[in-house]
Amino acid sequence: MEINESSLSVFYLSKLLALAPISIQQNAKGVIEIKRSIMFSIYAIALGLIMVILCYEGLLFDANSKVPLRMNSSTSRVVTAMDVTVVVFSSVAGIGCGIFSVTPSRELNLRLRKFDASLHSFSNFKRDRITTRIMAIIPMTISGALIAFDIWTWVLQIEISPNMSSTANVKWYIPFYLLYFVMIGFHILFANTAIGLGRRFRRLNAMLKCQYLSESKPYSLVRAQINNIKIIPDKAMSLHESIDRLNTESLPKDGLGKTRVMLLRSLAENHESLGKCVQIFSSTFGIAVLCILVSCLLHLVATAYFLFLALLNPNVTGYAWGQVLWIFLHILRLLLVVEPCHMATLESKKTIQIVCEIERKMHEPVLVEEIKKFWQQLLVIDVEFSALGLCRINRNILTALSSAIATYLVILIQFQKASG
Amino acid sequence: MEINESSLSVFYLSKLLALAPISIQQNAKGVIEIKRSIMFSIYAIALGLIMVILCYEGLLFDANSKVPLRMNSSTSRVVTAMDVTVVVFSSVAGIGCGIFSVTPSRELNLRLRKFDASLHSFSNFKRDRITTRIMAIIPMTISGALIAFDIWTWVLQIEISPNMSSTANVKWYIPFYLLYFVMIGFHILFANTAIGLGRRFRRLNAMLKCQYLSESKPYSLVRAQINNIKIIPDKAMSLHESIDRLNTESLPKDGLGKTRVMLLRSLAENHESLGKCVQIFSSTFGIAVLCILVSCLLHLVATAYFLFLALLNPNVTGYAWGQVLWIFLHILRLLLVVEPCHMATLESKKTIQIVCEIERKMHEPVLVEEIKKFWQQLLVIDVEFSALGLCRINRNILTALSSAIATYLVILIQFQKASG
Amino acid sequence: MEINESSLSVFYLSKLLALAPISIQQNAKGVIEIKRSIMFSIYAIALGLIMVILCYEGLLFDANSKVPLRMNSSTSRVVTAMDVTVVVFSSVAGIGCGIFSVTPSRELNLRLRKFDASLHSFSNFKRDRITTRIMAIIPMTISGALIAFDIWTWVLQIEISPNMSSTANVKWYIPFYLLYFVMIGFHILFANTAIGLGRRFRRLNAMLKCQYLSESKPYSLVRAQINNIKIIPDKAMSLHESIDRLNTESLPKDGLGKTRVMLLRSLAENHESLGKCVQIFSSTFGIAVLCILVSCLLHLVATAYFLFLALLNPNVTGYAWGQVLWIFLHILRLLLVVEPCHMATLESKKTIQIVCEIERKMHEPVLVEEIKKFWQQLLVIDVEFSALGLCRINRNILTALSSAIATYLVILIQFQKASG
Amino acid sequence: MEINESSLSVFYLSKLLALAPISIQQNAKGVIEIKRSIMFSIYAIALGLIMVILCYEGLLFDANSKVPLRMNSSTSRVVTAMDVTVVVFSSVAGIGCGIFSVTPSRELNLRLRKFDASLHSFSNFKRDRITTRIMAIIPMTISGALIAFDIWTWVLQIEISPNMSSTANVKWYIPFYLLYFVMIGFHILFANTAIGLGRRFRRLNAMLKCQYLSESKPYSLVRAQINNIKIIPDKAMSLHESIDRLNTESLPKDGLGKTRVMLLRSLAENHESLGKCVQIFSSTFGIAVLCILVSCLLHLVATAYFLFLALLNPNVTGYAWGQVLWIFLHILRLLLVVEPCHMATLESKKTIQIVCEIERKMHEPVLVEEIKKFWQQLLVIDVEFSALGLCRINRNILTALSSAIATYLVILIQFQKASG
Repeated sequence: MEINESSLSVFYLSKLLALAPISIQQNAKGVIEIKRSIMFSIYAIALGLIMVILCYEGLLFDANSKVPLRMNSSTSRVVTAMDVTVVVFSSVAGIGCGIFSVTPSRELNLRLRKFDASLHSFSNFKRDRITTRIMAIIPMTISGALIAFDIWTWVLQIEISPNMSSTANVKWYIPFYLLYFVMIGFHILFANTAIGLGRRFRRLNAMLKCQYLSESKPYSLVRAQINNIKIIPDKAMSLHESIDRLNTESLPKDGLGKTRVMLLRSLAENHESLGKCVQIFSSTFGIAVLCILVSCLLHLVATAYFLFLALLNPNVTGYAWGQVLWIFLHILRLLLVVEPCHMATLESKKTIQIVCEIERKMHEPVLVEEIKKFWQQLLVIDVEFSALGLCRINRNILTALSSAIATYLVILIQFQKASG
Repeated sequence: MEINESSLSVFYLSKLLALAPISIQQNAKGVIEIKRSIMFSIYAIALGLIMVILCYEGLLFDANSKVPLRMNSSTSRVVTAMDVTVVVFSSVAGIGCGIFSVTPSRELNLRLRKFDASLHSFSNFKRDRITTRIMAIIPMTISGALIAFDIWTWVLQIEISPNMSSTANVKWYIPFYLLYFVMIGFHILFANTAIGLGRRFRRLNAMLKCQYLSESKPYSLVRAQINNIKIIPDKAMSLHESIDRLNTESLPKDGLGKTRVMLLRSLAENHESLGKCVQIFSSTFGIAVLCILVSCLLHLVATAYFLFLALLNPNVTGYAWGQVLWIFLHILRLLLVVEPCHMATLESKKTIQIVCEIERKMHEPVLVEEIKKFWQQLLVIDVEFSALGLCRINRNILTALSSAIATYLVILIQFQKASG
Repeated sequence: MEINESSLSVFYLSKLLALAPISIQQNAKGVIEIKRSIMFSIYAIALGLIMVILCYEGLLFDANSKVPLRMNSSTSRVVTAMDVTVVVFSSVAGIGCGIFSVTPSRELNLRLRKFDASLHSFSNFKRDRITTRIMAIIPMTISGALIAFDIWTWVLQIEISPNMSSTANVKWYIPFYLLYFVMIGFHILFANTAIGLGRRFRRLNAMLKCQYLSESKPYSLVRAQINNIKIIPDKAMSLHESIDRLNTESLPKDGLGKTRVMLLRSLAENHESLGKCVQIFSSTFGIAVLCILVSCLLHLVATAYFLFLALLNPNVTGYAWGQVLWIFLHILRLLLVVEPCHMATLESKKTIQIVCEIERKMHEPVLVEEIKKFWQQLLVIDVEFSALGLCRINRNILTALSSAIATYLVILIQFQKASG
Repeated sequence: MEINESSLSVFYLSKLLALAPISIQQNAKGVIEIKRSIMFSIYAIALGLIMVILCYEGLLFDANSKVPLRMNSSTSRVVTAMDVTVVVFSSVAGIGCGIFSVTPSRELNLRLRKFDASLHSFSNFKRDRITTRIMAIIPMTISGALIAFDIWTWVLQIEISPNMSSTANVKWYIPFYLLYFVMIGFHILFANTAIGLGRRFRRLNAMLKCQYLSESKPYSLVRAQINNIKIIPDKAMSLHESIDRLNTESLPKDGLGKTRVMLLRSLAENHESLGKCVQIFSSTFGIAVLCILVSCLLHLVATAYFLFLALLNPNVTGYAWGQVLWIFLHILRLLLVVEPCHMATLESKKTIQIVCEIERKMHEPVLVEEIKKFWQQLLVIDVEFSALGLCRINRNILTALSSAIATYLVILIQFQKASG
């Protein structure tokens, strides 16, 4: 996961939810160092274990109680067990990936920090922090509210009808709902890092455009754009500054060409580094993302099926509305995984188009050669988020999932008709 | 959407059907300016809202009337509700995209006008207008006729059997049929713009072929071809003319080479601009196209199912024929979306093959370098219409849809057998 | 379709089966000219019309007779009607494509003759003729034998059981079986042309290898290889010969390089021309191939289903064996379409690999430039047979079809269980 | 299959299981020569034939015995027959591929030996042998244990219940279980060769990185890396050594450049040769791999279905556990095919990325040209394992298979509900 000043809110949330057993420390040079936190590792394992055990205990309690809360028929028993198992798998996979993510996180953040040092802007820094906070708060709030609504519905039902199951049954489902928060936490962690990667691809594209395509524009505009993308003291930065100075002081063209070549080369390196970040990120959280995608698929099928059953029985409108809300939550969860990856992929694909445009407009021989190399590199490296290599995470997966949901839902409804 | 002299018929039709709340104005230089028309925006929103409300009112009226017209069984209730909802979604999405399409339309038309200025021919201009008018009239007429036939069948049925539902039920379905026209209008708008884009790719290919591949042909033929593709006064045009002059006056070869390089560069720019037009167009109407595709899928499944039911009951041949006609209308709708996109994509793919042929036949070093750049650009930019990135719109989608229709139809028929 | 000396057997067979209303004539220069034969066009249309009418007459006769032959239950009625309709569609599409194929055939053969003139070998010519004859005879014989067996089984059944339908019913199915021959004829025509295209790609690859990769081999071997691929008098041939002469007479290296460049350029042109042949061929017979593929799918599902029913009923072993044979015929039909296309595609893909190898081993600057251009061309042009752009015809389609067959078969068997 | 000193254990195992009728002999130069072993060919055919006949005899015996062991209902009869047939097909396909693999194996090993001679390291040699032995022992042990457990369960059941079938029924299933070992043996043979290919791609990448990317590192590190990848006496080796010498003795730069170019060219050739090895390997074992994949699919569906039935009946927990173990075995089998191919493909895809990195960092003109050629070659040649061209063997196939398994399983369970 990405760890820097702007994403601290997500980092602490992940740490709390046992997803990031990492301790950070600023060393003498002011650079953040990432280390494994033994205490939080133990906390993560313990929390995971206890929650899972409590979940299945609760499941058994409900199944064996006289008047079960959710497991009153054989079908609902299978579906509830599946529901719980899917959530358990997803959150355990999330915690597991967290435990094994310390070393990859270190490499990821090293690369990201290097990238930020080359293409930094102070202004965006603030906006990033706000985005991250929104990312952390909104999904947690929504799912918290929905879970509260769910529990409240159960309690209300029990209070109304005396021959219903006791509130103890509801209490036994609390560990299950807590694991839900862990799962949502993983969603936030994943989405935040993917957004961070996409944001960097966008910044790289903006840098390319402003440096190599804005010559025809009036100088003040270019100036403004360059100011917008500020550079912190670094090797690349000095390059950048020297270009600006050369532009204003109108030094001999040859020197200008050389520095521009070096800037282009550094951008190419940064693009490749970002591509490797995507690879590291994909392979680190691959198994957890796969679990999440499967959980979204199964939950959407199951919830849609319950909604269908609820619509047949006109008494329980409250229950039906609950199911509609759950469907929205699961769709939100799915989009939280797919959209940031889609956006980052899209942004990374734009670079080669910009490079083609630059190639068309540039005629300095030394630059042309360098651009051709960059083009060759971009043609070959395809930046793709994937779940363990089993499927690519982009919008196409939504089509595949919706077709699968439609098919399974139709078969399930057929079941219902045949048996009922 | 494309707005110019030749596509005015489609533009006014769209405006009438609340799909284009745009006002056009010719400024001092004779250039058409595109602005948001506040009046038509309000008209679009109002029409959309009223129609949707009336549709669902009608649905409720029919469901609650003693002898319903279309909702006399639980299955037909679900299917009719789905039918209406799908049409409502599609037309509302069309109206919505129309409201938000003002800014993208402005950019699209700016690019298209620039393109036309570089590669204009007066003769095609007339044919375009005729094509557009045919595009506007034929689908509207066909669907109008079919809807009239549908209503007439219902009225006839009511008149024959006295214990049937009253004509009031039929009247309540009129808003639904009106929304159908809005949907067909969106089809026309979409198809017309896609055809316009495809036409421009074809023109670009023709220009490339005639300028760089026709040297071996007798000169008079080239002359005729060049005359066929006339150029209006512009920078590119002057280029073109100067080439012609150079050809006839046999100026030194070096100058000729330079102008040819510049023409090639301008063609490359135009190709990229067209590619961006496709992107703008796809993203502007993406959500509406997705709704349209889903509506085609659902309507085809439902209509085929009703046809199957009608064939089992040999009394209602008139009804069966109606279903066959509806199936043809839905297939027509589908082809109206897919075919123009397929054609444009195909045409844009041809450019790179022509460029390869030019590369094989050209041996002037300065041109070779430029062609290589064009080739690199074409290899990278793939022109594809897509529905929100969820699926690409080309003929492959027809295979996917027909397989989905077959599967769902088989499952539906199985339902029927199991329950009946 | 391909028309030359070696494929005359397939041409006359197609002409007989109303698939090729083409007349050929050798003009003064010994070149075959392809023209539309009005007489055979009328013959094709008449045969098609009469057969189709007789087919459906027969179907109605059987359905209305007291003891129907094949239509004794509602399911078998639907399946038989589907069976006949699919065959009718396929053969009518074949005849229709034949009628509209005169102009494309002329262009195709023009390109092929040009290609053969550049890369001709007399020895292969004889083998081609034999291959073509085998192609024409074997599928016709197999399907003829199977149809005879089928009719014989029906007649036998009628003779044994007196309360069965009369032999008149069997006679009415004869037009249907005749249309089968038309369909098989189209298969042969299609496969033969595809094989011809694949053969030419292979020959081009052999030429490339022998001219540019065999330098390290002892000279006599190269000599033998070159002799193996003889060249008829043509422009390309003269090129070829001059290279040989240059090789033996050891002329200055510069001239040799030039001729080699020109040979490479001509090979690149030939490859592109072959690619265009594939395109012409695909678009000419696209609709018929689509019908054929659909017919294979439906027939395989239906036949496998009948086999399953026959296995449940242990009395009719003869019938079951008939079904097994039909399944083999349909698989053969499918492979007759897919395999030649797959082979030709594979062969065309090999060229770029050979070009890469040549590039690695060649170091003459003038040749390197030309090879790079060839590489660029090959990277871009993908030779693919497709059925109207709806699906590509290669081995992947077999996977898709077998998965579809499995699914539909399972659903059909479920039907049977539910209803029986 | 790969035959060298390190893979002898797999070779002898394959020979024993009739999968490799090959005799190896060291000729005068110490090179292993591969020849067809007539004796083992006869052994393979005989073993295959006898086993298949005995399998079906056993099947008939069980079906006709009073109290069948596994075929006591019509459904279980079909499933058992399918189970046996699938194993028979897979192992016969394995034996058949083995018989026809002598010539391709010779070419494969020739290429591999050439490759190893260029990029050899003694240290890895030992590790390879250990990996191979683990590969040979673990799957055999696991499947042996599972089959023993299976037989033991059957025997136990018979001993407990007197009215069960006799132990003779169990004995008749032994040939079936023996064929299982042949199938597992083929899995090991296939996986070992694929791993060997992947290992070589990895070694090639390491060589590229160490030779062309490690200049900035301290010299001692490079030295260590080079020592790690030792080279046996060969042409390439001498190249390699001379580079090292040049590096230390600091000869003129020009000579160094030339040798580096030649090394790069030899690496390009080796990469292409490995790609051809993958092709040879795919086409040799294509049909057997297809059978194996189909067997995995069918077995997983059937076993999961039996597990479902066992879970409905709470008495037979031992049987249920057996099914769970079988599911694990089949998943292991599947991964044994897919994972090595996936890894090798992944490794081969990395080369082009490394080449891009080299291109970015190298600025010697002579090397740049050579790298561009290498890039062109790598862009074109895609290394892919495929089952007869019907499907590519990589992780995507797991997604397709799991979706197919889910669908068929749901349909099967529906069957059960409808009939029971």
